[in-house]
Amino acid sequence: MTASDDRLKALRKCLAAHGLDALIIPRSDAFCGEEVQPADERLAWISGFTGSAGLAVVTPDHAALFSDGRYRLQMADQTDDNWQCHVMPAVGVADWLLKHTGDGNGGKIGFDPMLMTVSAYERLSQELATKGKNLLGLVPTAENLIDSIWQDKPAPHTTPAWNVDSAYHGRDRKDKIAAITDQMASSGADCLLISDPTELAWLLNIRASDLENTPVMLAFAILTEKGEVTIFHDPQALADIKTDHITIKPADLLMSSLAQYQGQTVWIDPAHCPFGIRDALSTAGAKLHSQSGPITPCKAIKNQVEAEGFRTAHQRDAVAMIRFLAWLDDAAPDGDLTEMAAAAKLQSFRRQVDGYLGDSFGTISACGEHGAIVHYRATEHTNALLAPNSLYLVDSGGQYHDATTDITRTVFIGRAPEDAPEDAAFCYTTVLKAHIALDQQRFPKGTTGVQLDAITRQPLWNVGLDFAHGTGHGVGCCLSVHEGPANISPRGQINIEAGMVLSNEPGYYRDGAFGIRLENLLLVINPDSETKHSKVKDDLGFEHLTLVPFDRRLIRGDLLSEAERQWINDYHREVQEKIAPLIAAIDDIPERGHVTAWLTAATAPILEN
Amino acid sequence: MTASDDRLKALRKCLAAHGLDALIIPRSDAFCGEEVQPADERLAWISGFTGSAGLAVVTPDHAALFSDGRYRLQMADQTDDNWQCHVMPAVGVADWLLKHTGDGNGGKIGFDPMLMTVSAYERLSQELATKGKNLLGLVPTAENLIDSIWQDKPAPHTTPAWNVDSAYHGRDRKDKIAAITDQMASSGADCLLISDPTELAWLLNIRASDLENTPVMLAFAILTEKGEVTIFHDPQALADIKTDHITIKPADLLMSSLAQYQGQTVWIDPAHCPFGIRDALSTAGAKLHSQSGPITPCKAIKNQVEAEGFRTAHQRDAVAMIRFLAWLDDAAPDGDLTEMAAAAKLQSFRRQVDGYLGDSFGTISACGEHGAIVHYRATEHTNALLAPNSLYLVDSGGQYHDATTDITRTVFIGRAPEDAPEDAAFCYTTVLKAHIALDQQRFPKGTTGVQLDAITRQPLWNVGLDFAHGTGHGVGCCLSVHEGPANISPRGQINIEAGMVLSNEPGYYRDGAFGIRLENLLLVINPDSETKHSKVKDDLGFEHLTLVPFDRRLIRGDLLSEAERQWINDYHREVQEKIAPLIAAIDDIPERGHVTAWLTAATAPILEN
Repeated sequence: MTASDDRLKALRKCLAAHGLDALIIPRSDAFCGEEVQPADERLAWISGFTGSAGLAVVTPDHAALFSDGRYRLQMADQTDDNWQCHVMPAVGVADWLLKHTGDGNGGKIGFDPMLMTVSAYERLSQELATKGKNLLGLVPTAENLIDSIWQDKPAPHTTPAWNVDSAYHGRDRKDKIAAITDQMASSGADCLLISDPTELAWLLNIRASDLENTPVMLAFAILTEKGEVTIFHDPQALADIKTDHITIKPADLLMSSLAQYQGQTVWIDPAHCPFGIRDALSTAGAKLHSQSGPITPCKAIKNQVEAEGFRTAHQRDAVAMIRFLAWLDDAAPDGDLTEMAAAAKLQSFRRQVDGYLGDSFGTISACGEHGAIVHYRATEHTNALLAPNSLYLVDSGGQYHDATTDITRTVFIGRAPEDAPEDAAFCYTTVLKAHIALDQQRFPKGTTGVQLDAITRQPLWNVGLDFAHGTGHGVGCCLSVHEGPANISPRGQINIEAGMVLSNEPGYYRDGAFGIRLENLLLVINPDSETKHSKVKDDLGFEHLTLVPFDRRLIRGDLLSEAERQWINDYHREVQEKIAPLIAAIDDIPERGHVTAWLTAATAPILEN
Repeated sequence: MTASDDRLKALRKCLAAHGLDALIIPRSDAFCGEEVQPADERLAWISGFTGSAGLAVVTPDHAALFSDGRYRLQMADQTDDNWQCHVMPAVGVADWLLKHTGDGNGGKIGFDPMLMTVSAYERLSQELATKGKNLLGLVPTAENLIDSIWQDKPAPHTTPAWNVDSAYHGRDRKDKIAAITDQMASSGADCLLISDPTELAWLLNIRASDLENTPVMLAFAILTEKGEVTIFHDPQALADIKTDHITIKPADLLMSSLAQYQGQTVWIDPAHCPFGIRDALSTAGAKLHSQSGPITPCKAIKNQVEAEGFRTAHQRDAVAMIRFLAWLDDAAPDGDLTEMAAAAKLQSFRRQVDGYLGDSFGTISACGEHGAIVHYRATEHTNALLAPNSLYLVDSGGQYHDATTDITRTVFIGRAPEDAPEDAAFCYTTVLKAHIALDQQRFPKGTTGVQLDAITRQPLWNVGLDFAHGTGHGVGCCLSVHEGPANISPRGQINIEAGMVLSNEPGYYRDGAFGIRLENLLLVINPDSETKHSKVKDDLGFEHLTLVPFDRRLIRGDLLSEAERQWINDYHREVQEKIAPLIAAIDDIPERGHVTAWLTAATAPILEN
């Protein structure tokens, strides 16, 4: 918990000096990703809260923190008495502002115009106007007020960018640029503002290490209809980059450079573009084409080289996971292993994998009741021992040169399979049925995420179980582990298309007891097959990329249909056939015998009873 | 086919006299239902087209007919060379108008303001404004121009209304009115315009026979926040009606009466309210609260008396269907039975059912390839013989004092079960699996139609089959056979709630060959059960209301899972147990022995192979 008295005092002084009645402090940086650099952890600095989503509002008399239901407990844990914590959408920021900042008097709400997107600004200002008396104003600040009082603030940093090898990207920069400029031409846009670093990385086949888990550089760029890209970034960091089609300008020239777009039509994505950039473009006399951008939908469809990268990276990643699970089965039942130690061990196995760049997100290593906290992150404060005869949930992934992985397994911790709690085995088997339902589903073109999400939940719903998150998210290729535009969830309105990579991760969580989640990544394919009764040319289906056993000790064969039993046995045979040779081929595995024996046992057929 | 030369000539003369460049002639009447009286069949009169949806546009030089994909062939069949037929949305009315009526010159498009809803008007005028030069104007006509030239036009007619017996409605008028006026008070509405006759019928517990298949009176009404209702209708027709809370005014006083709402807030439902009424209210100085109305969502939730009415009406209706299917099995295989004769026979059985008021829609009686035309209606022109060894699809329903029914069965026509085509049996069995998937599904509160629709399609999708209509629609209680607001379809965004009655009608259609549809009505229930692993209080599920056998000759037991086989055998046992005694109890069934034996055979267990 951070003592916030001094920081709030300094900030309030600063508010007074700027004539503001409140300041909004979001968690996000200018690039709207899930991750930020330490230099952008302003919300954590002022409030103590380290969750991945949220914002604070500080007024002369109040300090309020807002996040979503995932972080209810964490907000309370990490803040001191100065803070009121609110769960959105039950409490909304606009309502709170109207109540606490004197709507009637024309209050001024400050915000950093680079840290609020156009969409977020419009939503908030419209809500304030509709619900209030239209007197409360959102006022962009000329500098970031937190930065002005944060004395030991770490410096933002850039890292050397590298060219992605053509063996991994499968499509030249020139070709990608042409596809995007075609769309710009159809939309009548002269320029495209690229405000999402993963879009820039994909377009130019460039990666960097500006963030811990997502291999991108944090930079804005502008693409012209002629296919020329200007990147606003540290030229040093781009020293190794092939510069065909690219001009590099220092990042601090971004705002002044926008003046040159007077009279041109600039495509901005309001969900990603900072208010400050739109404002500068408008001031410069640019015409704005405000619509979701053309790169994200292209990026989501993996080409054949990327698809093959996903396959091979998942096979290598499986070796690390299987070594970990074999080790865990031996090491954990004694009861002296902590969640953090287990996560560290898993990372040590991944570090030995060819092409490993880092983890794709912070590992969730959660035993017993911690497994029921969907976004649990073990800390020194919570770090629990893996208790014998409990369930352990591990959700982790790696960034590799050729792809990104994301896998969750839930396993029994114990020496005797018969000690696996019957209740947990019932729930585990039902979650597995849900996982299988999606994996094997075929579906017509035009099917959306909400439809596949319902099909996944069917077995759970039928026994009165459910889970409060989506079934799956898109995954980038050596990019974000959570990638748009598609997802498989009750809100999934985007068509699922061939070439997308999506997670399949149904779960079940019993508060205070255990959590189960079973996650593979899936590649959407076009099986293009001919059934006996119908010629099917456009149907879609899935190929599972992840190849790691499920825990046989928690699978009740009597609850599986014949088709489901066949699925799990086929899957385990595939794991054995593809991964055992990789384990045999790697030099320097001291525990090879143990891992090989473990894998053979773990992939043995499930019988009916 | 109607020769339209003279009619178009007369209409064009009329257009010229009124200074119009075009006239829109919709199929609907002022009440927007699926059915209209003969007096309102203006579209059929001018064009020849008798489909249930569509509109015509006539200009000095062109006559264009627009409907949806269901009616592509029928439009062409029923119109002469004067007409161009267009399928929406591929061709839109606004685009057509802009192209053919000289947008640049400020063309005037006439329409009857009572025959276009506020929503339809706003959609069309907005599209014309966006796509055109804002010069094309929609001009309400003072009289209906078709009526002015239709010389032998049938007169509109009213029918005597009756009070629904409390044994059927389960909720007093006073109580219903109080529930609605509560919602008006929360919304700040002084009055509610009731423009949907099924809403008026439900609210006041009144029925009539103004339409052939929907037992309503065609009348507008206004409900005040004090709970007083003014009905604008023929007082003669309402002579038998209990008049507590009701004032009756002749229908032709409606428009002049609207003046009295000056300064009051009137709630109108833009999807149902005619443009002409809104216009009159605006002119009178009323404030408009324009939002979907409060009655439809209440009406959709059946109370316990209505639910019991649905159960018993379906049992009685099942007797008619079973007598028909037993008769058909005997009569059809000789090959001299027509589709229309079969439909007439079915109606003759329904007429013998207690409480029968009429059919709930025109029966679809379709053999062979006609079964693949989803909205097929046999006419003298198309009337085919039921061919031996083919599939016959019959979709029909009845209106009863206590409920409305809607059932589809597809059966094999032939003496030898082994002659049933293997291909059709595969498809039939897969459609049955889809039907079972929905019937047995449990789901949490908040589940929407699109989710249940996907669950239904899962077995079809997995073998490359699908169907191009929704899985289910709401059904009224002695009211519309298609009732909002909920449905089970890819567009179903409304929550499915306990008390709703919905159809479960997956299908498969092979153009030029056969059609399969298997439809039961379902009541949404709250099983409120406790499973071993989870206390479930809010989950929902279904109770099937329809109790008529599926065709065992088309069911391949080897394709069913154990659970599916158990479902069909349980269902057939339930049919036998509930319906056989009703057949035994009815006086005067000459063919009782045959029907009883048929039912016993039709409900025998399905074995694995």
